[in-house]
Amino acid sequence: MPRLTKQRSKKAGLPPGTLIHIGERKAEEAKITIIDYDGDHYQERETRTVEECFSFKDKPTVTWINIDGIHETQILEKLGDCYGFHHLVLEDILNTDHRPKMEDYGDYIYVVLKMLYFDKEGQQIAADQVSLILGSNFVISFQEREGELFETIRGRIRNGKGRIRKMGADYLAYSVIDAIVDQYFVVLEKLGEEIEFLEDQLVSHPTPATLQTLHNLKREMLMLRKSVWPLREAISCLERGESSLLKETTAVYLRDVYDHTIQVIDTIETFRDMLSGMLDIYLSSISNKMNEVMKVLTIIATLFMPLTFLAGIYGMNFKYMPELEKQWGYPAILLLMLAIAIVMLVYFKRKRWL
Amino acid sequence: MPRLTKQRSKKAGLPPGTLIHIGERKAEEAKITIIDYDGDHYQERETRTVEECFSFKDKPTVTWINIDGIHETQILEKLGDCYGFHHLVLEDILNTDHRPKMEDYGDYIYVVLKMLYFDKEGQQIAADQVSLILGSNFVISFQEREGELFETIRGRIRNGKGRIRKMGADYLAYSVIDAIVDQYFVVLEKLGEEIEFLEDQLVSHPTPATLQTLHNLKREMLMLRKSVWPLREAISCLERGESSLLKETTAVYLRDVYDHTIQVIDTIETFRDMLSGMLDIYLSSISNKMNEVMKVLTIIATLFMPLTFLAGIYGMNFKYMPELEKQWGYPAILLLMLAIAIVMLVYFKRKRWL
Amino acid sequence: MPRLTKQRSKKAGLPPGTLIHIGERKAEEAKITIIDYDGDHYQERETRTVEECFSFKDKPTVTWINIDGIHETQILEKLGDCYGFHHLVLEDILNTDHRPKMEDYGDYIYVVLKMLYFDKEGQQIAADQVSLILGSNFVISFQEREGELFETIRGRIRNGKGRIRKMGADYLAYSVIDAIVDQYFVVLEKLGEEIEFLEDQLVSHPTPATLQTLHNLKREMLMLRKSVWPLREAISCLERGESSLLKETTAVYLRDVYDHTIQVIDTIETFRDMLSGMLDIYLSSISNKMNEVMKVLTIIATLFMPLTFLAGIYGMNFKYMPELEKQWGYPAILLLMLAIAIVMLVYFKRKRWL
Amino acid sequence: MPRLTKQRSKKAGLPPGTLIHIGERKAEEAKITIIDYDGDHYQERETRTVEECFSFKDKPTVTWINIDGIHETQILEKLGDCYGFHHLVLEDILNTDHRPKMEDYGDYIYVVLKMLYFDKEGQQIAADQVSLILGSNFVISFQEREGELFETIRGRIRNGKGRIRKMGADYLAYSVIDAIVDQYFVVLEKLGEEIEFLEDQLVSHPTPATLQTLHNLKREMLMLRKSVWPLREAISCLERGESSLLKETTAVYLRDVYDHTIQVIDTIETFRDMLSGMLDIYLSSISNKMNEVMKVLTIIATLFMPLTFLAGIYGMNFKYMPELEKQWGYPAILLLMLAIAIVMLVYFKRKRWL
Amino acid sequence: MPRLTKQRSKKAGLPPGTLIHIGERKAEEAKITIIDYDGDHYQERETRTVEECFSFKDKPTVTWINIDGIHETQILEKLGDCYGFHHLVLEDILNTDHRPKMEDYGDYIYVVLKMLYFDKEGQQIAADQVSLILGSNFVISFQEREGELFETIRGRIRNGKGRIRKMGADYLAYSVIDAIVDQYFVVLEKLGEEIEFLEDQLVSHPTPATLQTLHNLKREMLMLRKSVWPLREAISCLERGESSLLKETTAVYLRDVYDHTIQVIDTIETFRDMLSGMLDIYLSSISNKMNEVMKVLTIIATLFMPLTFLAGIYGMNFKYMPELEKQWGYPAILLLMLAIAIVMLVYFKRKRWL
Repeated sequence: MPRLTKQRSKKAGLPPGTLIHIGERKAEEAKITIIDYDGDHYQERETRTVEECFSFKDKPTVTWINIDGIHETQILEKLGDCYGFHHLVLEDILNTDHRPKMEDYGDYIYVVLKMLYFDKEGQQIAADQVSLILGSNFVISFQEREGELFETIRGRIRNGKGRIRKMGADYLAYSVIDAIVDQYFVVLEKLGEEIEFLEDQLVSHPTPATLQTLHNLKREMLMLRKSVWPLREAISCLERGESSLLKETTAVYLRDVYDHTIQVIDTIETFRDMLSGMLDIYLSSISNKMNEVMKVLTIIATLFMPLTFLAGIYGMNFKYMPELEKQWGYPAILLLMLAIAIVMLVYFKRKRWL
Repeated sequence: MPRLTKQRSKKAGLPPGTLIHIGERKAEEAKITIIDYDGDHYQERETRTVEECFSFKDKPTVTWINIDGIHETQILEKLGDCYGFHHLVLEDILNTDHRPKMEDYGDYIYVVLKMLYFDKEGQQIAADQVSLILGSNFVISFQEREGELFETIRGRIRNGKGRIRKMGADYLAYSVIDAIVDQYFVVLEKLGEEIEFLEDQLVSHPTPATLQTLHNLKREMLMLRKSVWPLREAISCLERGESSLLKETTAVYLRDVYDHTIQVIDTIETFRDMLSGMLDIYLSSISNKMNEVMKVLTIIATLFMPLTFLAGIYGMNFKYMPELEKQWGYPAILLLMLAIAIVMLVYFKRKRWL
Repeated sequence: MPRLTKQRSKKAGLPPGTLIHIGERKAEEAKITIIDYDGDHYQERETRTVEECFSFKDKPTVTWINIDGIHETQILEKLGDCYGFHHLVLEDILNTDHRPKMEDYGDYIYVVLKMLYFDKEGQQIAADQVSLILGSNFVISFQEREGELFETIRGRIRNGKGRIRKMGADYLAYSVIDAIVDQYFVVLEKLGEEIEFLEDQLVSHPTPATLQTLHNLKREMLMLRKSVWPLREAISCLERGESSLLKETTAVYLRDVYDHTIQVIDTIETFRDMLSGMLDIYLSSISNKMNEVMKVLTIIATLFMPLTFLAGIYGMNFKYMPELEKQWGYPAILLLMLAIAIVMLVYFKRKRWL
Repeated sequence: MPRLTKQRSKKAGLPPGTLIHIGERKAEEAKITIIDYDGDHYQERETRTVEECFSFKDKPTVTWINIDGIHETQILEKLGDCYGFHHLVLEDILNTDHRPKMEDYGDYIYVVLKMLYFDKEGQQIAADQVSLILGSNFVISFQEREGELFETIRGRIRNGKGRIRKMGADYLAYSVIDAIVDQYFVVLEKLGEEIEFLEDQLVSHPTPATLQTLHNLKREMLMLRKSVWPLREAISCLERGESSLLKETTAVYLRDVYDHTIQVIDTIETFRDMLSGMLDIYLSSISNKMNEVMKVLTIIATLFMPLTFLAGIYGMNFKYMPELEKQWGYPAILLLMLAIAIVMLVYFKRKRWL
Repeated sequence: MPRLTKQRSKKAGLPPGTLIHIGERKAEEAKITIIDYDGDHYQERETRTVEECFSFKDKPTVTWINIDGIHETQILEKLGDCYGFHHLVLEDILNTDHRPKMEDYGDYIYVVLKMLYFDKEGQQIAADQVSLILGSNFVISFQEREGELFETIRGRIRNGKGRIRKMGADYLAYSVIDAIVDQYFVVLEKLGEEIEFLEDQLVSHPTPATLQTLHNLKREMLMLRKSVWPLREAISCLERGESSLLKETTAVYLRDVYDHTIQVIDTIETFRDMLSGMLDIYLSSISNKMNEVMKVLTIIATLFMPLTFLAGIYGMNFKYMPELEKQWGYPAILLLMLAIAIVMLVYFKRKRWL
């Protein structure tokens, strides 16, 4: 299980805008990838020194700077100085505990979102934070670790497939957001399978472990919700926004991502409802089992207690117990016991306990 | 049970607007039906080649192109090229996992909705996606499989009954939506009957199978909700919309469908509330049964344990137990036992356990 | 119990505006009552032929046409033709499964609401649908069956009591709505009494039948909610509406009915909360009873099992059991048993089980 | 417990504005108190004839007419005639079942609110309705019975303490509302103490009576909510209202009362949440107790059943049972029994049942 | 546990604006700290006489007056007279039971918020109220007791680090709010740890004490919610406010604090959801345990009751019981008993009870 809260407290008392990385350090060393393109040209460079980016600042082509690994605060500082980002933006990029949001600073738009993926090691959903800064001719993206998700976008730029090379920086930003939201569906499918498997298990043989799995799934749903709900508002802001950085042709694409986000939220809510329903089933299946156990106990006790009592009667040592002397006493009492047992069983049958 | 999520993940990483069919393939081959009419003329044609539709594009009459089976993406592509639909619209038509929505593209309006029907084979509610594109003089509808639902509309056009032949494409689009929403009532009636049957069963003899049915009904309600809730907003958008494609005379009809949608939602919510209440009844009926079982056990144990103890006392082998020697010992002890039993039974009677 | 859904499905596939009566047929034959009045004149007529109404259409006086029994669709058709009502309005009047609403058609306003009453035969709340059409100088009301509710309004018009004779058709429409909403309080009082009775029963001796009653009350609450919630919005629309049919002096009266509706809703929500709370009490009272039963069982078992064991010990047939030979053996063992029993009872006392 | 609904049904069928007192008659005879003041003058009069008030109507000074006991409808009628109040206002004053609201009639503002107090006799929260009519130079207040609450305001006017004598009628109306809302805190403190006491009791020794108290508290919360929630809106309307009757200097005071109302609502919601939580604790404490009882039963049964069986074995009367003849038979079997008992106890210890 | 409600009732009946301290008296003597600075100068003074502050009133530099301990009402009175604060503001400062809010009085803005900290003594979350008054060139802050929280801000002013010395009073006010909100994260981390610890405990060995802890955590959540929810609105008002006291450069910082507040609320809601889920787990783990206990009981009873009965049979004293005479009787019966026991155990194994 991931920690419930990240060690944000170490920032308490520091002035706002202090650059401190909050969260787990996920990458060894920051890696900077620069892609510069327009309809005709294309250039890609990988580097570890942030200064290389600066030359692209005033080029008219679209520049995509992607930084994997955000714990090296001096990279951010230099980048921020060069591009003139507000120090609060830089602070938010470093704080990986941030909720998704979108902020319009006039010259640039800052977007935070969560990339979700299924962590095969921990067998659970994990979230990385992605920050995007969209300017008139650049997109700068920050990832906590190197991921394969952006590779497909890079591929499309390289090959000049689709319309990405013909469109501006806003379409690139959209493509990044779209890739991240598409990934949510992958995670949801995985969760959907787990829920269906759990449902089958609940019906066939529920165990306390099933309940534990149910609880973990619920907790993952909480995390997902926290990651996706605010994103909806953020994208809606982008779409409706009056920023001149977003061209009208891109708005229809943003509306498409917005639709996807709502669908993700719908699915999460459906899953939550289903998990609640499954808890009810679990609890009533426990009750049912208890009922069954109790019935067995009651049947046995009700059957043997009267018989044992009868046997006890004729085990008494009174001098004058006429039945004991009779030749037919023993078989008679055995027959009586049999009769009692049969009556009892018929009674249970009638009560549908057998 | 239908899968919780469709295999949407196969689209992750592809550029937006890529035409990929998502969902089960429900029809063998796509079937195209073209109906062209105005107040005086009427023409109907069935074809498998999409190019036949193109000639109707610039006719002033109302053209209804219905396509059953959407897995053949090249049909969509050609149609989209001819009519100039946005490639995101085409993508959405292919994605059968879409939530109902309405989008105004200026020249045309795109509407997605779910057609619900009771699947007799699987004994459950199933949903097909229907997409509508409404232009100034045409309606193009896409269905996942051939259905009988539209046949009644076609009949009305053929016979020239009602006002459909006198009105424009917007009224046709309304008629299609209305037919689909009307179908919801059929489904709800079916569900209402199931719920009433279940309620009777719960009272007479609840079993774990009843609970399973309850759970399945709840799950179907979740699906219904997901299909209908967003539709309400979509139709409300249509009705209030400022699109010039929708004439004012049609608005009153749309308000009527809107009312129906709200009524469907109301009924779904009522059903949900009832199903929740039924779970409570089920749980307390289990508890009640357990109580009854426990009472039988307790009565038997409380009755026979003291008696067996008494018998045990006089079964002891002490040399000097004066009672054993007495002639009246045995009948006396039997009478004592009878007295104890009667006292016990009176006690249970008082406690209302018998 | 009334059916959950009415047979609305028979309309599926028919063109909008088709006049089909949906719901139970509650009256034998439609009865038409015409009242025509102004400050000075008053005229009342009862008829079975709808054509008699037509002469009143263009009179400047206020005309109230009340129709009891709506299954005869040709009456509606004629009336609609004469007054020029939209065919969707006529369709809605016939559909007794409609939710309350208000629609402004410019020349006239159409209002649907539910009349609630306590059905003495079925021992439950029942709902009839009432439709109102308010024009500049007329009110046409449609009831499913003849009711006494409107008689008091007729009485006021006849006697010229109050301000009804001095005001216009809008005040008449208000009076009808007010009479119907006032009736809700009567129904709520009846339900309040039932809830209080049930509450007493829950505390004194809850049975599974109590639970069934609880469930039925909850279901009635659902029906009430469905009838009243949308009415609130409808009346609010009327009050705030810019229709010239409603004079400003009537608005304050509509605000008063609106207040009443909100109060009805408040009471319904309070009742719902109370019924939920009562289910919790019922469930915990079952648990409490089970606890009590278990305690009796445990006390008996804990008391007699050790004693029976002791008796069993001295019932063994070993040759050499020195205690058996002793004169004091029997009384000693009886004393020991007594001591054990006392210790046990003290233990139970301490545990507050006795 | 107060009745759930008041006998409002007796008004059904009567024309609107009919003056009928709804609710319990709480005062013997109506008492009218007139206070007339400005910065310099002060006059106070107590009377039983309403006509005395009329002379104050056109005075420029602030007049406060307070009427304790509202069942004498003719007082209201005369007052209404003199001041020109709408007959619906008079009707609402008489209906003590009204929810809090504020209505602006132009010349005067009508406010209804609930005065809450702890009824020492019934040991519960009770509510009286207070109606206020604020005019340009007068405040008329109606109480169901004589209360001490307004005495403090009268005191402040008499002594000329605070700013009340320097301000207008709107400040007086505010003072009355403020006094009533302040009283809510007293009631909430009382309830808070009860809840804390109940919480202690739940932990130490919960009984079915605790549950009953819990249920009553919940019911009182429902009543409180009904009394306070709508008040919030009413005061908010007053504060934001554009009525010329409310001077700007008074608005800041109204905002203060508004804050208090929200705080009252916050506290009520917190209490409700706490009471819900307490029910969960109660239910699980019942389950815990049951568990404990079951453990005792199981331990005793598991301990003595095998031992009794063993004793039973050697109580059999077979001719050839070699162990019985042996000198060591009896002590050996006793030791065996001891061993079995010890093993069992260790087992229970391990399972944490002891 | 802190009291649910503070003794606010002592104010009931007093005129508004009466200065009475509500809440616990947390500081011995009020301590006044004055800091006066601009970009170049810096001055700090500590005093116990409020008159020293007055000289700073008209200085163009930023003055921060911090008062620890608010029970000495005459300090407030003098300060209020000098700066011209509304007497309702002074009253609110003294009322430590106030909910967070922001009020714009034109010349100054009044903000109330709650400072949360983990009270090590009481082992729980505690809340102090902080009031802020922001004027054009001053900030006056009121704390219930001396805290270390503001020391870090003072340090930044002293050292001239960050941008605080270059900015105005509004930035100082922001810094104070930011410091308080940052502290919330510290408290949330502490709670997160407790919740995680509790979760582990629930799985490994739940006890009634666990439930008590759960309940206390829930109660703390309620308190947190009450403290933070309204703050969100207050800060949002500040940010969007049109007050000229807040410069545009500060707005972006306020938006940052607003984001933090929303994140705190998100976390609180997540915690609440988790705690609810944990109660379900607790309840079902109790049920599971009960099931286990019942199984042991049932196994033992079902095993030994038939055997004891058999032994009882052959313990009967009938004269003619042929089996008793046989040499093989005893071993045969022992074998039979063994066989029965084995059959039983196999049955339990099949039922998965072993």
